[in-house]
Amino acid sequence: MKIAIYGYGNLGRGVECAIRQNEDMELAAIFTRRDPNCVHPLTAGVPVYSAGEAAAHKDEIDVMILCGGSATDLPGMTPALARDFHVIDSFDTHADIPVHFDRVNQAAAETGHLAMISVGWDPGLFSLNRLFARAFLPKGKDYTFWGKGVSQGHSDAIRRIPGVLDARQYTCPVEKALQAVRSGEEPELTTREKHTRLCYVVAEEGADRAAIEQQIKTMPKYFSDYDTTVHFITQEELDRDHKGIPHGGRVIRTGRTGAGEENRHVIEYSLQLDSNPEFTASVLVAYARALHRMQGRGETGCRTVFDVAPADLLPIRPEEMRAHLL
Amino acid sequence: MKIAIYGYGNLGRGVECAIRQNEDMELAAIFTRRDPNCVHPLTAGVPVYSAGEAAAHKDEIDVMILCGGSATDLPGMTPALARDFHVIDSFDTHADIPVHFDRVNQAAAETGHLAMISVGWDPGLFSLNRLFARAFLPKGKDYTFWGKGVSQGHSDAIRRIPGVLDARQYTCPVEKALQAVRSGEEPELTTREKHTRLCYVVAEEGADRAAIEQQIKTMPKYFSDYDTTVHFITQEELDRDHKGIPHGGRVIRTGRTGAGEENRHVIEYSLQLDSNPEFTASVLVAYARALHRMQGRGETGCRTVFDVAPADLLPIRPEEMRAHLL
Repeated sequence: MKIAIYGYGNLGRGVECAIRQNEDMELAAIFTRRDPNCVHPLTAGVPVYSAGEAAAHKDEIDVMILCGGSATDLPGMTPALARDFHVIDSFDTHADIPVHFDRVNQAAAETGHLAMISVGWDPGLFSLNRLFARAFLPKGKDYTFWGKGVSQGHSDAIRRIPGVLDARQYTCPVEKALQAVRSGEEPELTTREKHTRLCYVVAEEGADRAAIEQQIKTMPKYFSDYDTTVHFITQEELDRDHKGIPHGGRVIRTGRTGAGEENRHVIEYSLQLDSNPEFTASVLVAYARALHRMQGRGETGCRTVFDVAPADLLPIRPEEMRAHLL
Repeated sequence: MKIAIYGYGNLGRGVECAIRQNEDMELAAIFTRRDPNCVHPLTAGVPVYSAGEAAAHKDEIDVMILCGGSATDLPGMTPALARDFHVIDSFDTHADIPVHFDRVNQAAAETGHLAMISVGWDPGLFSLNRLFARAFLPKGKDYTFWGKGVSQGHSDAIRRIPGVLDARQYTCPVEKALQAVRSGEEPELTTREKHTRLCYVVAEEGADRAAIEQQIKTMPKYFSDYDTTVHFITQEELDRDHKGIPHGGRVIRTGRTGAGEENRHVIEYSLQLDSNPEFTASVLVAYARALHRMQGRGETGCRTVFDVAPADLLPIRPEEMRAHLL
């Protein structure tokens, strides 16, 4: 299976590493919007092309994994590339998924390609677990908790404050809320009760730290609805202790069964990830395998993780799967 | 969707309750090997027939849910009924799944029916999570822990000891082992290190308790490989405190990604169930919906949870699923 990477940032490098862990896959090409001569892949011998040249290579590639951002890259990139390739992306702006789906579906269906969007862990694996848990416990309530993990968007928001040189923001689940959910009591929890925000900030020399802290804590949407803690540290400390991109979280559903709905059940799916982009990349690569198989069966148009039979994710035969995994 | 229940024990009653939570389903009939006049369903008006009459009702039923036991019922029952019905079972003898699959597949394929076997939580949801986690973390290690929950087989084994009137056995995961696994260190754990066994025993008056305890703790296969605790209690205490059938457990996979496989990840799926048979029944009912849809698309033969696209489990439209669950 010949896989290509379109966009070689953290996610693209993660996809490259993930391909090396899957023996039925080969990295066929990397496409970049930078100067291809400045991109140095880990994989010896893999060609690097300019993004604009992609269409010329369409016969060399089974699945193109799109590693752009959801805010500005993927809304245009995925439908455009779905006209020449079988594509898969990790589009993660939940509210815009229906519109993105329709655009990608139209482009892929018109040209006989198969596409898959919003593949990763949220959306992706968390979505799957929300669906499964709702199917198995129709009477119940869903909860999603994130963290402890780095939010790039919140870290960026802090960096835009005057006087801030660098910052790293962690989203943390509140243990007490987790315990209340797991009790099966179906609590109603406010935003503030579910997560806290922990910020490490490098300030310019002489900056007004109290003013920076105040600006962070009162920032609408990002911080004002949360209990936020701000620590000022040095750039050296930030680089030493906070350079990773860990993340994770959990999806919990509690529900009731029985003649009088007297029995309670808790389904919990959790991820604890040292590297958010590398794990997202591993999920993309597994679904690229499924996409290739589904395309081989003649499917076209757009799909999501909801449409993929689990057996298509693994490179082993159904008999082996039933004998060893069931 | 017209569902029938074949076998009206704990699991069958659980299926009946689960159908009531799913508005697109109707309980069409109950088949029993007892005298139908002695079976009193919760659902008003549902006909109860003798198991032997099933074939006469095949045109009234979309999916037959088989609620027999794996040891002696299902190996014959599922292939036989797959000749007249689209059937689903919860066959849970892991080692015999390949043989059972082949028999059911042949019977269903020959007669144009669709069947699904080994649907429940283990095998079933735990199997799915083993498959998913292996697909997303190809380099890693799997662990399954059960409990705290009642093992019917172990409780029965204790009851067969002379001098024992009644017993209830709980399988418990060892917290220290769970923590070692979650650390990502990929420990090798013995049977004894992973689970303990906790037994509540009602002894006959004047029975030799020390001898009973000794017989339990040294019983091969069931107890001798575990640290086992035995408490003698009265029948009243057993009935009051241990009449439920709770169970649960967790599937954990830890794995590594990155250029030097330096980043660790933990995927954990856990269930905490007040009623093992009722939850198993809820899973069966959701997969019965999928079976009906797949059959409607012309599929025949045998399937497992590995073959089911998640979207087929829920009674809502794909657009709604993408908008609200993805």
